This record gives sequence, structure tokens and C-alpha cells, in this order.
Amino acid sequence: MISQTAEYALRAVVYLASQKDVPRTTAYVAEATKMPAGYLAKVMQSLCRAGLIQSRRGLNGGFLLKNQPGEITLLAIVNAVDPIRRYPECPLGIVSHGRRLCPLHRRLDEAAAMVEAAFQKTTVAELIETPREPKSCRFPIVPPPSK
Amino acid sequence: MISQTAEYALRAVVYLASQKDVPRTTAYVAEATKMPAGYLAKVMQSLCRAGLIQSRRGLNGGFLLKNQPGEITLLAIVNAVDPIRRYPECPLGIVSHGRRLCPLHRRLDEAAAMVEAAFQKTTVAELIETPREPKSCRFPIVPPPSK
Repeated sequence: MISQTAEYALRAVVYLASQKDVPRTTAYVAEATKMPAGYLAKVMQSLCRAGLIQSRRGLNGGFLLKNQPGEITLLAIVNAVDPIRRYPECPLGIVSHGRRLCPLHRRLDEAAAMVEAAFQKTTVAELIETPREPKSCRFPIVPPPSK
Repeated sequence: MISQTAEYALRAVVYLASQKDVPRTTAYVAEATKMPAGYLAKVMQSLCRAGLIQSRRGLNGGFLLKNQPGEITLLAIVNAVDPIRRYPECPLGIVSHGRRLCPLHRRLDEAAAMVEAAFQKTTVAELIETPREPKSCRFPIVPPPSK
């Protein structure tokens, strides 16, 4: 439903949010969230370009969120790397159809809009502050890499 | 949100449904629905294997729906070629997490379930019987290929 790239971007941002204001390197985030470092590096670049995260140079440098977790929606993260496909016009490319969608493509666009709305109303803060049930998955608080 | 392959499969089945019980060749469907014939041929094979369409041999042979349009859901078509990704367990592959999803992956799974439900409750019949507004897109009733 969302691409692997979008899922990695969500993992990375949620993980950085869970690390408070401690900068983390791509290698560190990759190990902690089980992502391939090379792939994650490209995702981090896209997140930087979109203004969602920032890098801090220096000995203890790394990536940080640019804004508060409560100000970052899941939709903003997905849109930064691989937006959900909408159907603004007939994908058959029939010029005369233009923006008049057939019933099939109208349904597909409605479903995409439904997912966008769900991601728009959820912030990263909600994902890290959710009280955990006993034995629930601890991600993004996985055991930190040895360093 | 759904793959190109899934969108092609939906186009093909909706188009065949609009052709009543007249068999259509892959080349014919490809031209009428603006899809690459080679790509569509693979999609048609998957739809046949899933039991959604059938082929009729002979001079006027081609593909037909196997069941009535009212019995075919959009979900069945998507699942036949490229199912929507669900998260039955932690995608980080952390064994101890197992089926206990973190808040992030629970939200992603909920969104995927929401889309599956929307596709499950919509049949192909609803898409071809929808009354068209004036000037609405005519797909799947596009001008038939010259033959």
C-alpha cells in the first residue's frame, strides 16, 4: 500500500523522534531499525531535502528531527519520499477524458484519499507516546547498537 | 497505493465485464484500455490462474469473465496479481517482537485493512452499472479498436 521506501522513511523518523534530541548517524539508525545503510542513506537525503530532518556536523554529529514529533504527520513523511498515487485525471491518457474519472479510477482515487487522510491526522508523537501494552513490540525502542 | 500491475488487472476485468459475453483477445483489450500488450498478457495469465477470467479458443476466441461481474470484488482482482501489503508481524524481523506490532506498523496495517475492506465491498458490476454523468469518462466503454 505504501512503498518500501516510504516504510523505511517512517521507521527512520519515528526512531529519531524516540531518541529525543540526540543526533544519530545513518549507520546507527540503520542498525537499530534493521534497514540497509546504503538504502537508508538515500532516504535520509530525501527527508533532509523535505525539511523533516537535519544533520549536525562534528564528533557527535548525526541526524535530528527538524521539528517536534507532534508537528510531523505520517503523510508528510510519505510524501517526502514516495507519495501515495492519486488519480487527478484519467490514467488511460485519453485527452477527451481529462479530469472526468470513470467509476473504477474514481474508486481508486477515493481509496487513496482515505489513506492520505488517515496519515494526515496521525503525528509521529502519537506513535512514540502510545502507551505500550505488556509484551508489545518495543520498536522504535530497540536495543541500541553497540557503540 | 496499489501497484501498476494491480491497476492493469482492474482495468482488464472491468473492460471484459463491459463487453458482456463477447470474448476479447489480449491485443484487443490492450488497445481498448491503453495497456502494453506484453505486460497485459502476463496480467491475464495471473487472472486466469486465480480463476477470475477464462480463455475461449477458436476463431472468435479470447478472454471472458469466469463469473458474473456482481460476484467479482475489486479485492479479489488485486489479490490475484499483487496483494495489498499487510503487516502480520513485525517487519523488522525481530523474533522477540513476533506478532506484537509497534504503534507505527499497527497504523500501517490498519490503513491497509481499511483499503482491503473498501475493495472487498465493491464489485465489478457496480463499476460498469454506475450511471454516468454527462461528459464523464467513458472508460471502460472506450472506442473499440478497429478490427
